[in-house]
Amino acid sequence: VALRLDEIVARFGGELVGPGSTMVSRISPLESAGPGDLAFLANPKYRHQLATTRAAAVIMSPPATDGSLALILTQQPYLYYARVAQWLNPDPEIASGVHSSAVVEGSVAPDASIGANAWIGTGARIGPGVVIGANCSIGQGVVIGVGSRLASNVSIYTGAYLGERCLVHSGAVIGSDGFGFAREADGAWVKIPQIGRVLIGNDVEIGAGTTIDRGALGDTVIGDGVKLDNQIQVGHNVHIGAHTAMAGCVGIAGSAVIGARCTVGGGAVILGHLRIADDVNVSAGTLVAKSITRMGTYSGMVPFLEHGDWLRNFSRLRHLDAMADKIRVLEQRLAALEKKS
Amino acid sequence: VALRLDEIVARFGGELVGPGSTMVSRISPLESAGPGDLAFLANPKYRHQLATTRAAAVIMSPPATDGSLALILTQQPYLYYARVAQWLNPDPEIASGVHSSAVVEGSVAPDASIGANAWIGTGARIGPGVVIGANCSIGQGVVIGVGSRLASNVSIYTGAYLGERCLVHSGAVIGSDGFGFAREADGAWVKIPQIGRVLIGNDVEIGAGTTIDRGALGDTVIGDGVKLDNQIQVGHNVHIGAHTAMAGCVGIAGSAVIGARCTVGGGAVILGHLRIADDVNVSAGTLVAKSITRMGTYSGMVPFLEHGDWLRNFSRLRHLDAMADKIRVLEQRLAALEKKS
Amino acid sequence: VALRLDEIVARFGGELVGPGSTMVSRISPLESAGPGDLAFLANPKYRHQLATTRAAAVIMSPPATDGSLALILTQQPYLYYARVAQWLNPDPEIASGVHSSAVVEGSVAPDASIGANAWIGTGARIGPGVVIGANCSIGQGVVIGVGSRLASNVSIYTGAYLGERCLVHSGAVIGSDGFGFAREADGAWVKIPQIGRVLIGNDVEIGAGTTIDRGALGDTVIGDGVKLDNQIQVGHNVHIGAHTAMAGCVGIAGSAVIGARCTVGGGAVILGHLRIADDVNVSAGTLVAKSITRMGTYSGMVPFLEHGDWLRNFSRLRHLDAMADKIRVLEQRLAALEKKS
Repeated sequence: VALRLDEIVARFGGELVGPGSTMVSRISPLESAGPGDLAFLANPKYRHQLATTRAAAVIMSPPATDGSLALILTQQPYLYYARVAQWLNPDPEIASGVHSSAVVEGSVAPDASIGANAWIGTGARIGPGVVIGANCSIGQGVVIGVGSRLASNVSIYTGAYLGERCLVHSGAVIGSDGFGFAREADGAWVKIPQIGRVLIGNDVEIGAGTTIDRGALGDTVIGDGVKLDNQIQVGHNVHIGAHTAMAGCVGIAGSAVIGARCTVGGGAVILGHLRIADDVNVSAGTLVAKSITRMGTYSGMVPFLEHGDWLRNFSRLRHLDAMADKIRVLEQRLAALEKKS
Repeated sequence: VALRLDEIVARFGGELVGPGSTMVSRISPLESAGPGDLAFLANPKYRHQLATTRAAAVIMSPPATDGSLALILTQQPYLYYARVAQWLNPDPEIASGVHSSAVVEGSVAPDASIGANAWIGTGARIGPGVVIGANCSIGQGVVIGVGSRLASNVSIYTGAYLGERCLVHSGAVIGSDGFGFAREADGAWVKIPQIGRVLIGNDVEIGAGTTIDRGALGDTVIGDGVKLDNQIQVGHNVHIGAHTAMAGCVGIAGSAVIGARCTVGGGAVILGHLRIADDVNVSAGTLVAKSITRMGTYSGMVPFLEHGDWLRNFSRLRHLDAMADKIRVLEQRLAALEKKS
Repeated sequence: VALRLDEIVARFGGELVGPGSTMVSRISPLESAGPGDLAFLANPKYRHQLATTRAAAVIMSPPATDGSLALILTQQPYLYYARVAQWLNPDPEIASGVHSSAVVEGSVAPDASIGANAWIGTGARIGPGVVIGANCSIGQGVVIGVGSRLASNVSIYTGAYLGERCLVHSGAVIGSDGFGFAREADGAWVKIPQIGRVLIGNDVEIGAGTTIDRGALGDTVIGDGVKLDNQIQVGHNVHIGAHTAMAGCVGIAGSAVIGARCTVGGGAVILGHLRIADDVNVSAGTLVAKSITRMGTYSGMVPFLEHGDWLRNFSRLRHLDAMADKIRVLEQRLAALEKKS
């Protein structure tokens, strides 16, 4: 795809500086852009790269730079870049039809695409325009909405419902049993049947190796527009509100209810049976052990140190309470002395 | 399945309050239960829901409530609920036989079920009643005991032995190489062949995306009744004692020996070459860096704070040792003053 | 394979003590070794086991022990052990050829091996001696170099390049989309097309369930000899230098640049857009939130405590800043008193 700058501005808005007839065919970072490339400047700290870039044009926020570089000025250059990048890089066309090696026991819309050695169970319904990658396993009765795409080796269990225009990456598992057991007197575990569903909204992205358990009795619910990165674990009966995004390796225990438009940093752990309000940001590596009732940013990241410094400082963590006691005693003794003097 | 309350009590014990002819066909939470549902009250904080529940009957601990609600009284309502739920929700019947698209090079018991596009390697032995899901890969010589069930896309390497009545979820990997390398002078790594086995007992559940490495020389051993949630990593030569349960995202480094009846919370990390006694509980998010020799609960969870508070407080972690020094100096100076006065 | 000690020393060096005609056929730990086994002593704390071992011979560092035990003396017994173990345990021979159930749309070298129900997409090039396990999915245009081996159920996306002699374990995913979105005013996310590649060098090992995202615009690059354990997450545009090794469950956010010969402990989290120098060791469970510019060891591991002690001590973390303030006030008051007295 090659686009004229005036076409782009006609579609997405912004102010064009320079010749509208300039053609661009590729998005590139400022520093590595070459002729024919459209670059973007979203972070002001790279502004100095404008002087030397070889890009054909740059998306950036006003004011314009001096010089002859063609520009598209917009208040949100990163968002603008995302839209142009989508236009320049449409999803690859995938031929519709069922691969001869696939096993289809359910129903598949005529223009859907089922990859090599995939399996579609009895009663499953694969919607129009859906793409199922090679070696996927789609359980009995699973429903996948219009235009959703699954990469290869995805597993979906019986009882999962996937909305429209979702994107599911390889190795993801949807609908596995939640972790529920009662304990006998001798310590043995009795499995609690996991019979709820997984309900996934529209425009959800699910990363590689991410696992989403089905509900125990009720359902696990993932809202519209939720974006889950790789290797995230979602326990049974979790609810995630619309447009919440989570970075890689987040773990969410059962029955946590997470609001809309939240962000959760990589490696964070959210314990079960708690609530997180809308518009909450949880920093990377943070353990959320109780409910968060107000929007805002919450952190529990532990700093790292050179190993010797770590040894000296972190060993004190075992004695913080004693330190606090010593301070209290010092305050009392000092107050007594002050009184006397 | 629909059951009479007196049938249930005849099988599992407990005290019946109300008409034994009451029929129940489904387990539901107290608050959402409807007519024909059997609810349970395991957590006293939901006791107020008894007044308004529409359930046909409730499993709870004594004493009985006033009113006309049918009850099953038991000292362990959660365990009782698990057993009734199993009765009401038997494992789905899966037709035995080998799917025409499966590749079977090993031996399969006549009443086992092999799913679409699964592969069973040479010399593998699949026991009676075993269910192997679609797209599973079962390596050469693997042995799977009576009644075990594998969901789709499970990978088992050569040299793994799985007991009876195990349940393995999608994306799980059993028998991958442990992480063992020796280092050359220039920093390059020389692989140490991983030639041990994975031995898994009976009644073990292995979660989606969980990985269990084979032993380096000896074996990796998972005891009877162990329950592993999703995305757990078990390093080479780890031993996990019977009836130990671990929540999602736990990582266990090589050669850790973990006792029986332990519980490990989500996201905990257990370092290698250490021992954990029987009946130890490790809290979520805790890093176990040395052996635990006595039963009990152990924690290292880090609290989270509103971001500004976090910034102010956690930056002090880099200076704890200096704080401790200041306290010591204050104590000395104060003692000197006190002597003087 | 059975080897004479003098053959081993002829090939790998070291000083032979005892009869060179001694035959060994297996590597074993000192304590469990039997006749015909070659044991090794790498950790001096197990030296006492030399007195009772039944091994035929032992690899260890000088000086020799008294007694009749045959020895190979070397300054690096662990490295020596690795080399002998490789000789005694060669990779299993795998018959070349394409399994009849595999779907090959790309090109496969004549002596490569393609497993049951694997899929090789259009334009993919599978090099000589490559082994592709059962149920693997290899996307269009993927290139896999000479002698690399993939276990079962591996997924590789379009746009990934794998070097020579790599080893990729089950459930690994290479080339999934990076996590890149721009945000609209209402909180909805606009996907940024991920169009970069994954470039993996030679002699790289990738663990079970490990996921490596493709670059957003540029590439994700894994250097020669890198060893990644299980369930590691590598974000888009990450660069990992040659011979760096990472233990299980490490998470690396996008655009982190990690040097050569680093080691990263299990469960560590490395945030994005930062740099780690060559020869850096990051301890297990450490969150790396800023660049590390000098070689050395860095830690942020949090100690664990018996639960009651944890409660008393870790609750103080919320008040460290107040503690520091109290100390400062005490110092001022004490100085005033000292002046007076």
